[in-house]
Amino acid sequence: MPTVKPPQNPEANPRVKAVFDDIRSVRNSDFINNVWRYLAFDPNLLEETWREVKSVMATPSELDPLTKELIYVAVSVANGCEYCVHSHTAAAKAKGMSDAQHAELLRIITLAAKTNQLAIALQLPVDPEFNAANS
Amino acid sequence: MPTVKPPQNPEANPRVKAVFDDIRSVRNSDFINNVWRYLAFDPNLLEETWREVKSVMATPSELDPLTKELIYVAVSVANGCEYCVHSHTAAAKAKGMSDAQHAELLRIITLAAKTNQLAIALQLPVDPEFNAANS
Amino acid sequence: MPTVKPPQNPEANPRVKAVFDDIRSVRNSDFINNVWRYLAFDPNLLEETWREVKSVMATPSELDPLTKELIYVAVSVANGCEYCVHSHTAAAKAKGMSDAQHAELLRIITLAAKTNQLAIALQLPVDPEFNAANS
Amino acid sequence: MPTVKPPQNPEANPRVKAVFDDIRSVRNSDFINNVWRYLAFDPNLLEETWREVKSVMATPSELDPLTKELIYVAVSVANGCEYCVHSHTAAAKAKGMSDAQHAELLRIITLAAKTNQLAIALQLPVDPEFNAANS
Amino acid sequence: MPTVKPPQNPEANPRVKAVFDDIRSVRNSDFINNVWRYLAFDPNLLEETWREVKSVMATPSELDPLTKELIYVAVSVANGCEYCVHSHTAAAKAKGMSDAQHAELLRIITLAAKTNQLAIALQLPVDPEFNAANS
Amino acid sequence: MPTVKPPQNPEANPRVKAVFDDIRSVRNSDFINNVWRYLAFDPNLLEETWREVKSVMATPSELDPLTKELIYVAVSVANGCEYCVHSHTAAAKAKGMSDAQHAELLRIITLAAKTNQLAIALQLPVDPEFNAANS
Repeated sequence: MPTVKPPQNPEANPRVKAVFDDIRSVRNSDFINNVWRYLAFDPNLLEETWREVKSVMATPSELDPLTKELIYVAVSVANGCEYCVHSHTAAAKAKGMSDAQHAELLRIITLAAKTNQLAIALQLPVDPEFNAANS
Repeated sequence: MPTVKPPQNPEANPRVKAVFDDIRSVRNSDFINNVWRYLAFDPNLLEETWREVKSVMATPSELDPLTKELIYVAVSVANGCEYCVHSHTAAAKAKGMSDAQHAELLRIITLAAKTNQLAIALQLPVDPEFNAANS
Repeated sequence: MPTVKPPQNPEANPRVKAVFDDIRSVRNSDFINNVWRYLAFDPNLLEETWREVKSVMATPSELDPLTKELIYVAVSVANGCEYCVHSHTAAAKAKGMSDAQHAELLRIITLAAKTNQLAIALQLPVDPEFNAANS
Repeated sequence: MPTVKPPQNPEANPRVKAVFDDIRSVRNSDFINNVWRYLAFDPNLLEETWREVKSVMATPSELDPLTKELIYVAVSVANGCEYCVHSHTAAAKAKGMSDAQHAELLRIITLAAKTNQLAIALQLPVDPEFNAANS
Repeated sequence: MPTVKPPQNPEANPRVKAVFDDIRSVRNSDFINNVWRYLAFDPNLLEETWREVKSVMATPSELDPLTKELIYVAVSVANGCEYCVHSHTAAAKAKGMSDAQHAELLRIITLAAKTNQLAIALQLPVDPEFNAANS
Repeated sequence: MPTVKPPQNPEANPRVKAVFDDIRSVRNSDFINNVWRYLAFDPNLLEETWREVKSVMATPSELDPLTKELIYVAVSVANGCEYCVHSHTAAAKAKGMSDAQHAELLRIITLAAKTNQLAIALQLPVDPEFNAANS
């Protein structure tokens, strides 16, 4: 149940249509998922968000596409975003994540959450060896 | 400034010494960082934590070691753990993370945080296409 | 799906009725939303919570009512509270938030989340110029 | 203590100098705070971040500058970002936030955190009246 | 709506059956809740998770069983985990949590959230008296 | 390094002095820790905060004082509040928490964080058996 009312016929707005067309082209798919349909309530926000997602996630870069999705899923879990956990887990599977890799991703996320809490509870002093300014 | 007092001479305890020896052996380094020195206040907790970290992070598996560290850093940032951000960023660099990869990691983490907040603020309905139970 | 069972006929309890009457009077509306109906399982908690919400949000103060709701929405998004995002976004709209202001609120929340993660990932040293004790 | 090593002489890089010059011009101040000095380790990231901060926070818009800073502080507190709490509290003061407004901001942030936790603990069903799709 | 597809007939796998049998035995109940049914997609993860939950939560220890559940609920609320808030609130009730104790638990969680945010917003210096290393 | 400047001589203000006197009396100690010294910048906020902390934490109630502190520490760790982790860990020790109980508290907090992340990553459907409205 959303907090904004998406336009009934979003592609009647040429700016929205241009974004949706680009999403379809970049992803080579007709499926436009809800985040884009709802963001259409504000074409500026839609354009800015898609431009950034496309630039970071759909442009060849230092890291391979699956690694980028795994990181995205990990952050989305840590931030407790239901929609994003779903959309990026699906994207990771579409980019080849196996069940065994999924299980390993869960192991890393949950181990990190565990040791994060441990370090916070102990208020560990940071080892001076980790100071990048001295490297 | 910590919440527990670490033992002055931790390796006087043979269980602590065994863990420290294993850390040195697995990492091929004499450096024992603070998380292990402070966890020595409770040898059970030290043993359990190291066993799990070793199993998940230092054992050959589905994902390569650098990818695993990038995921660990991402979760640690999202959870706001100062110590863990430092220790795992340093570990990622030791495993070959370049400055350009570091910058890209930051781009993904921050984009994910941004779209996580957007999806939460809009309370987006999850697309039924993402339902794994139907796959 | 709740974790407590709300009373079937909450206003049979005079303490609950007094709070509900005050909510209706302050808001000039007959609508009592679920947070109050469920808090009625413990009249002390209901009274304390309403007293504080009324004092902070429904009493003339330094900040205008819409600004206060925008801040409340922002915190609720950052804390990932589904119910609160809904109730306070609706309240902000009732106090005059336009679609353009809503979009701007989303831009600020998401930019802040992004730079928050960036500062945490970089573990930026705080500039001494920001020390209020020296001001 | 940072996780990246900032360039010693950042303005030797013309892209960095251009951003720093723009910051000084927009803010009408010679002070360049640490987030920009450290982001200079990657000029792309520096340019992108400044462009977005300038667009959202330093461009006339629907909300007034102080309201925008109050929202930014609120999100930064909720996300536990030490650096950002400092830099944006200082910015809010520079834009006129009084001690009384600061205290009120704290009241709203903390009340929101409290009721956020309450709603999550009770797992309150969202009132159908809040459904924006039906508005 | 889950991100993994649980096995249709999980106990056909003897490793899964062994874990489910142990759960039934330890809890003296036939009810196997969803976390175990879905974790069965990866028997290793199922075994590891149950082993740790059993060791920490279902083994006599320093703290009594109800106290342990109250702490578990508190963390689950703070981390915004819907499933865990439900399962551990139900577990706390099964271990004797009264409505009055539930209300008090909510008071402590929400007060802590409130003062946590206050301390973060004020960036309070930690009193040197709290340094455990000097104790 | 704080975001507010505390009054140099806070007890010159009779409202501040009354709160400090009550803290000393309730705690039977002369030590006034920083949260109260800094909150003195706004006597209303100081009074409200102390009244609530005293009511919840220093008044005989359903749960014993040590259990209440353990819950407070757990929430403070989950929320990443450095100051609160320190002050409430110290308070728990003052109320009798042993090293073994401290270690067990850490085990519960970190296990909860781990399973919280697991449940979020799997987006587990809540078992209908947990619905309190049907109880």
